[in-house]
Amino acid sequence: MRDDAPNSWEARADAHSFYGFTDLPTIEDRGAVVLTHGEGPYVFDVHGRKYLDANSGLWNMVAGFDHPGLAEAAKAQYDRFPGYHAFFGRMSDQTVMLSEKLIEVSPYDTGKVFYTNSGSEANDTMVKMLWFLSGSEGQPQRRKIITRKNAYHGVTAVSASMTGKPYNSVFGLPLDGFIHLTCPHFWREGLPGETEEQFTARMAQELEDVIATEGADTIAGFFAEPVMGAGGVIPPSKGYFQAIHKVLKKHNIPLISDEVICGFGRTGAVWGCETYDFIPDAIISSKNLTAGYFPMGAVILGPELTARLQAASEAIEEFPHGFTASGHPVGCAVALKAIDVILNEGLIDNVRALTPKFEAGMARLLENPNIGEARGKGLMGALEAVADKATKTPFAGDLSVSERIANTCTDHGLICRPLGQAVVLCPAFIMTEPQMDEMFEKLELALKKVFAEVA
Amino acid sequence: MRDDAPNSWEARADAHSFYGFTDLPTIEDRGAVVLTHGEGPYVFDVHGRKYLDANSGLWNMVAGFDHPGLAEAAKAQYDRFPGYHAFFGRMSDQTVMLSEKLIEVSPYDTGKVFYTNSGSEANDTMVKMLWFLSGSEGQPQRRKIITRKNAYHGVTAVSASMTGKPYNSVFGLPLDGFIHLTCPHFWREGLPGETEEQFTARMAQELEDVIATEGADTIAGFFAEPVMGAGGVIPPSKGYFQAIHKVLKKHNIPLISDEVICGFGRTGAVWGCETYDFIPDAIISSKNLTAGYFPMGAVILGPELTARLQAASEAIEEFPHGFTASGHPVGCAVALKAIDVILNEGLIDNVRALTPKFEAGMARLLENPNIGEARGKGLMGALEAVADKATKTPFAGDLSVSERIANTCTDHGLICRPLGQAVVLCPAFIMTEPQMDEMFEKLELALKKVFAEVA
Repeated sequence: MRDDAPNSWEARADAHSFYGFTDLPTIEDRGAVVLTHGEGPYVFDVHGRKYLDANSGLWNMVAGFDHPGLAEAAKAQYDRFPGYHAFFGRMSDQTVMLSEKLIEVSPYDTGKVFYTNSGSEANDTMVKMLWFLSGSEGQPQRRKIITRKNAYHGVTAVSASMTGKPYNSVFGLPLDGFIHLTCPHFWREGLPGETEEQFTARMAQELEDVIATEGADTIAGFFAEPVMGAGGVIPPSKGYFQAIHKVLKKHNIPLISDEVICGFGRTGAVWGCETYDFIPDAIISSKNLTAGYFPMGAVILGPELTARLQAASEAIEEFPHGFTASGHPVGCAVALKAIDVILNEGLIDNVRALTPKFEAGMARLLENPNIGEARGKGLMGALEAVADKATKTPFAGDLSVSERIANTCTDHGLICRPLGQAVVLCPAFIMTEPQMDEMFEKLELALKKVFAEVA
Repeated sequence: MRDDAPNSWEARADAHSFYGFTDLPTIEDRGAVVLTHGEGPYVFDVHGRKYLDANSGLWNMVAGFDHPGLAEAAKAQYDRFPGYHAFFGRMSDQTVMLSEKLIEVSPYDTGKVFYTNSGSEANDTMVKMLWFLSGSEGQPQRRKIITRKNAYHGVTAVSASMTGKPYNSVFGLPLDGFIHLTCPHFWREGLPGETEEQFTARMAQELEDVIATEGADTIAGFFAEPVMGAGGVIPPSKGYFQAIHKVLKKHNIPLISDEVICGFGRTGAVWGCETYDFIPDAIISSKNLTAGYFPMGAVILGPELTARLQAASEAIEEFPHGFTASGHPVGCAVALKAIDVILNEGLIDNVRALTPKFEAGMARLLENPNIGEARGKGLMGALEAVADKATKTPFAGDLSVSERIANTCTDHGLICRPLGQAVVLCPAFIMTEPQMDEMFEKLELALKKVFAEVA
């Protein structure tokens, strides 16, 4: 498969691009996949090979890879005003309009928006905002951040510290003061004989216990994805957010909903917090916000945090934070269009319409004796590979089962994502029923082939 | 000036946009400036007012606000492939080509590139890379980062910790392990009777002393902007980088050149390190990299760091880091064009051609009795306001002298940037001689008016 000619795209990619989040033995074996263009949910590589991208790029290209309306919105803004910042009280008209739109579609009647270039920067910014409040309000010791194991909040040193994945230990992370609670994954973390309700109660009690041990006045905030994304598509156990939120409210700890993946339709509602029926103190948005057409993140502050941050900033006459491209006019124009496309041009309706078929496809694959769990919400799902279904025993790590499944899929023109021992599916919101059939058929073939080799 | 009608753009901006790096009393008084479009180095607000932006947006819109070639490059890529990531060994053809181009124009014969969305993320990434090396190479205690007072490296919690500005204390930053040396600003920091050469030697000795005190094997890296930008356009003292580099080499501490502002032409050479004649171990790039047309940052690794990071990654089969929009195809297409525009379509030539006129204009303003220093390099400069020129005594802080100068300029259709008690100029590379005359004339009027009020 790999073209080893010295001037091949594979060799050129190897020569000068330092790969991130890439299985290097796979590259060594197969070479990079260099892509040139896309059509709907399909992408094409330099060799003319076509792939159905069941990963929507990286959860984000939900309107596909050639949406004319989104491209037009970007192009029109490039002709109008192709770049500016949002410092010194200057900003583009697009930025003003996007902030209005984001508050309009948020769970809040009033609030304010702060822009970044990524979800990582948005989470990092939210942490800085909470630390700023702690200092400003006379509680400089209130700095600890609580998240959960398997949470994914980004890759800056601070957002990686919030991310509850073991790989961050190679950087000497997390930094001090980042606490990771148990992942609310009932299938994996539930105790023998424990009901889901008992499990949820135990998660809430763990939070109570940690707060008691650490001291409530040392904790700046609790961050959670409604459905954990890069941790392996893990929906919360029943009643989880209600139980957690009750504890947080009691101790005056803000709840921040990281909606980088869930936001703008992935779970079938605008927000994941809507799907799970809670109203957080702030929302972190990115990815679908521009349908992947522009790098952008946003911190959407609810009324209480808005008022407190405004007061803290006025006291020192400034909020000394901001990125050069915060509120970039092209990004804002793209986001205004993406929100319109998702909410008003049928994309979120299609998520809802396709979800039963998606769930049925997942349920069918769960019949495979080496699939231990099929989980998800809306159009995000994961199939967990197991060596033994009854005991939930994983395969030996050196079998690289999920990578083999994903590579086999790639050979058959399907891109899906290996995550731990799971395979993740997060199709574009424009997917059709025949494309969904293609996705499940190709995945099923790959599962059968790989399990026949390893099981 | 401020339009207080409830539906005015000023009111709409206030209502839902949380302002960063903005003097809030100025906003309270004058309202936000909401911009709609640009022409060359000029921008226009919603009221039709025209401003010569002597700030190039935020140092970055160096090709102006309506460059047809850059807009075309973006638009063509939106039609071709409007978004993808660079995870899992997949990336766009544009990404491969940009990495090749960046190494070609770098000071390195070989090397690799890692993409981010901003300079903040690029510096944060570089710190994570150094921490990764420390752990991988059996020196987990090697984590401290040395920068300088007045350095600006970004706003993520870690890059803000590298930034040597007092305002970061409101966030409880810097984090532990970030050390700030004396700013190499001879005019301000030189001792009575000290020559510039003696001052530089003292800076190098300070570094030696800090390394001795902290322990060389606890220090992961030294980061420096060739000319400090947001610290107030501060060129290094004579021979500074040679003296510093010698110390760093002796102790095997990597030197990272933060070229977010200097890179791609600002100082008259491609890189600031070229202007100051040193070869760093890695380069951090952003801003001019896309001429402000797209959010992008890049870590450009020289051969030694490339080899070490490659080995460390292969040992764990992955470099577990990356941003969703790392290597975005539109950003890479824009960057390829921006590099071409700057290097081959006359922009860097214009920087060199205009520099004598820029320096002459600065020198003329230095004749003002309340300008204590005119400093800069290439097309970046700062004029330092002083109450007393002989003693270099600043004005009282509550006079807000530089804000008043900047606001007076705004009234006359010129955007320049107040920084401490200095006014910063960093014109677009496309500026013409008449536009430069306009810039200095308007600034001179503002200086006279404000100094007449306060001096």
